[in-house]
Amino acid sequence: MNFAELREVVCVLHAELVRNDLVAWTAGNVSGRLPGGDRFAIKPSGVSYDDLTPESIVVCDLDGNRVEGELSPSSDTAAHAYVYRHMPDVNGVVHTHSTYASAWAARGEAIPCVLTAMADEFGGEIPVGPFALIGGEDIGRGVVDTLEGHRSKAVLMQNHGVFTIGGSPKDAVKAAVMCEDVARTVHVSRQLGEPLPIARDHVDSLYDRYQNVYGQRSAT
Amino acid sequence: MNFAELREVVCVLHAELVRNDLVAWTAGNVSGRLPGGDRFAIKPSGVSYDDLTPESIVVCDLDGNRVEGELSPSSDTAAHAYVYRHMPDVNGVVHTHSTYASAWAARGEAIPCVLTAMADEFGGEIPVGPFALIGGEDIGRGVVDTLEGHRSKAVLMQNHGVFTIGGSPKDAVKAAVMCEDVARTVHVSRQLGEPLPIARDHVDSLYDRYQNVYGQRSAT
Amino acid sequence: MNFAELREVVCVLHAELVRNDLVAWTAGNVSGRLPGGDRFAIKPSGVSYDDLTPESIVVCDLDGNRVEGELSPSSDTAAHAYVYRHMPDVNGVVHTHSTYASAWAARGEAIPCVLTAMADEFGGEIPVGPFALIGGEDIGRGVVDTLEGHRSKAVLMQNHGVFTIGGSPKDAVKAAVMCEDVARTVHVSRQLGEPLPIARDHVDSLYDRYQNVYGQRSAT
Amino acid sequence: MNFAELREVVCVLHAELVRNDLVAWTAGNVSGRLPGGDRFAIKPSGVSYDDLTPESIVVCDLDGNRVEGELSPSSDTAAHAYVYRHMPDVNGVVHTHSTYASAWAARGEAIPCVLTAMADEFGGEIPVGPFALIGGEDIGRGVVDTLEGHRSKAVLMQNHGVFTIGGSPKDAVKAAVMCEDVARTVHVSRQLGEPLPIARDHVDSLYDRYQNVYGQRSAT
Repeated sequence: MNFAELREVVCVLHAELVRNDLVAWTAGNVSGRLPGGDRFAIKPSGVSYDDLTPESIVVCDLDGNRVEGELSPSSDTAAHAYVYRHMPDVNGVVHTHSTYASAWAARGEAIPCVLTAMADEFGGEIPVGPFALIGGEDIGRGVVDTLEGHRSKAVLMQNHGVFTIGGSPKDAVKAAVMCEDVARTVHVSRQLGEPLPIARDHVDSLYDRYQNVYGQRSAT
Repeated sequence: MNFAELREVVCVLHAELVRNDLVAWTAGNVSGRLPGGDRFAIKPSGVSYDDLTPESIVVCDLDGNRVEGELSPSSDTAAHAYVYRHMPDVNGVVHTHSTYASAWAARGEAIPCVLTAMADEFGGEIPVGPFALIGGEDIGRGVVDTLEGHRSKAVLMQNHGVFTIGGSPKDAVKAAVMCEDVARTVHVSRQLGEPLPIARDHVDSLYDRYQNVYGQRSAT
Repeated sequence: MNFAELREVVCVLHAELVRNDLVAWTAGNVSGRLPGGDRFAIKPSGVSYDDLTPESIVVCDLDGNRVEGELSPSSDTAAHAYVYRHMPDVNGVVHTHSTYASAWAARGEAIPCVLTAMADEFGGEIPVGPFALIGGEDIGRGVVDTLEGHRSKAVLMQNHGVFTIGGSPKDAVKAAVMCEDVARTVHVSRQLGEPLPIARDHVDSLYDRYQNVYGQRSAT
Repeated sequence: MNFAELREVVCVLHAELVRNDLVAWTAGNVSGRLPGGDRFAIKPSGVSYDDLTPESIVVCDLDGNRVEGELSPSSDTAAHAYVYRHMPDVNGVVHTHSTYASAWAARGEAIPCVLTAMADEFGGEIPVGPFALIGGEDIGRGVVDTLEGHRSKAVLMQNHGVFTIGGSPKDAVKAAVMCEDVARTVHVSRQLGEPLPIARDHVDSLYDRYQNVYGQRSAT
């Protein structure tokens, strides 16, 4: 994949945020970098999803400075940049204010792992990161500090929303979709009582299997 | 922008109410005026969103009397007119019965500012206006009295629904979309406990930044 | 309007049930008659909404016997027929299991009038009818006995779903859409406390105005 | 119907899972067999619903081994195979993590029969099956052991999701749609109080009638 293709991919993936009801108006963004690269592509700030084109996607260096594109990058660019600088295996980052994940975040409460789908995708609970103001490194640092050493690809930033990471932009979008899905199901379940816990060793074996057996092997 | 273009804009923005699930049947309306103008364009009463055309949009003077168009204007016209007469910087007004905002309104309860997205867009809580009967100046006065001196662009009218204002019709529609979005997220959050408050100075700095840094500068 | 046009109207209105999320699979139906007529047109039983055509719509006499069409009529035909026999001003009937209305119905609880939109459309609370088994006159009698002498065009049949009536099939569909909308908003409101009541004389004046002033006068 | 047609049917029915909001990303699958046959057709693992084609559908023998197709079959194949081996009248199986059904499953709680639509389709409550790890026969055995001798076509697998069965793939999809619909309505109803029970003999007569009278007779 070259950089023009990456901008195309990042552009198109925003449609998945809309299709999966993760965003209102312009409040959510996807970024991606090529493996090992020193630049990433990200949504321009305040632009409607309908109006996004590959050309409108902004390219930034790992300090978050725009190096290509006409528009100002997302106001969350500093957070994305921080993640790419500190997590070399991450090549996709997604940020949304999706309803159920943000509702847990507003209470500062982690989502407990009571669904096999959570064990599969996140390997346990989805943790909460600190309250942090936008504009500096605080949000990025909160994301990285919370996710390092954790199997979860999603973090609920207190009073704010959710950041997800992945080996590619598409992986990070999948994590954002699954995060909202399990945030909603666990919320609904807890409305009428306490969901049953899943034993830790069952969580582990579900996670291991899903990461290694699910889907199509590249050899196919 | 001339008046024909304003009617086109007002017509098209109603589709955003539908797309964002803010309205059932014909229960919601958008109006707009040209900056400094003495007329505004508004939805005709009881007409399906599918059937709206720029020509069907009704033009009224600031007392709410029809001056152009074949159809009767929205039954909420008097409220829109009152807002335009008393708030010279407002050039767009939206009224809906969107589910979550109306649910807070039915309890007469303001939405507390527990999300950074609320601090960004509304600068604090979304306040409640009085119960008022349709048909005279009571609704418009309730909207203006509640919003004057408040940073919020949205007001929950008790037992009724929501009015939002903006510097343009599109800004008012954005406020209506964001109001329902935060009304839903805070509702969901409170279903399972009390959301954490955001400190007042954090709310202030989030609001200042969003109003001044977010999006594309016109200079671009 | 002739009978071929009525079948077309009844066919097309089923799409509104789908668009407004009132039905799952094939569980909901619309019927209509021409004013003063002794026949009505209704959905065939168990046919997917995608497959409905004007020709597939079944015509029945007021005892519910098929007099035109190839397919078996809706299994709710006896209930529709009973309504037409006993309510001469009703020319449209809709039945759905829409989620929020059915949730109130499962508790056997009327929806209190705490929204101006409810006062407008229903003139007060939406009442509950008795539990009744399908197949005879019990459901139709329950609908008629509950709605006669009531301003509401909607009745929640206990443990079952909702029936709405109107002066035309479109009016009955509108009532079904508005019933689910207010059922949802009042439900959501009550999840976090008690909604404020609306004084009876305010309900009356809202109802009077909406029935007489809202929309476009036919003289226009 | 021949086997090419079955693959087409199984492919197309996945669109119903999407249209009815039963699935997030790729987390749900449909399978079908020809009556009396020793093979079944099933979704490939981890493939997006947009990308499914009849050719991508995998054919397996009743031990779950792929006998036709290029892709790896669903990771739930062993469970589907177990059902087909042990329930000779079942020719369609659907598995989803639909929100409300999974929320009941996470609490390990059966859905009580408090809606006539539940009595119609499921003949009583929707039962809960055991917690079981993916990969062997445990899930399939849990489905079969729970559904044998039960009128319900749906089982909530604890902490996991829902499996439904039917005489054809379409019947199983209908059961999955109706299961989520009643899971949601009963959940919503119970949020504000206890739904009223339906007497056992009423449940029986509703079930008998729906299974024998509803829809179009094949003789038509």
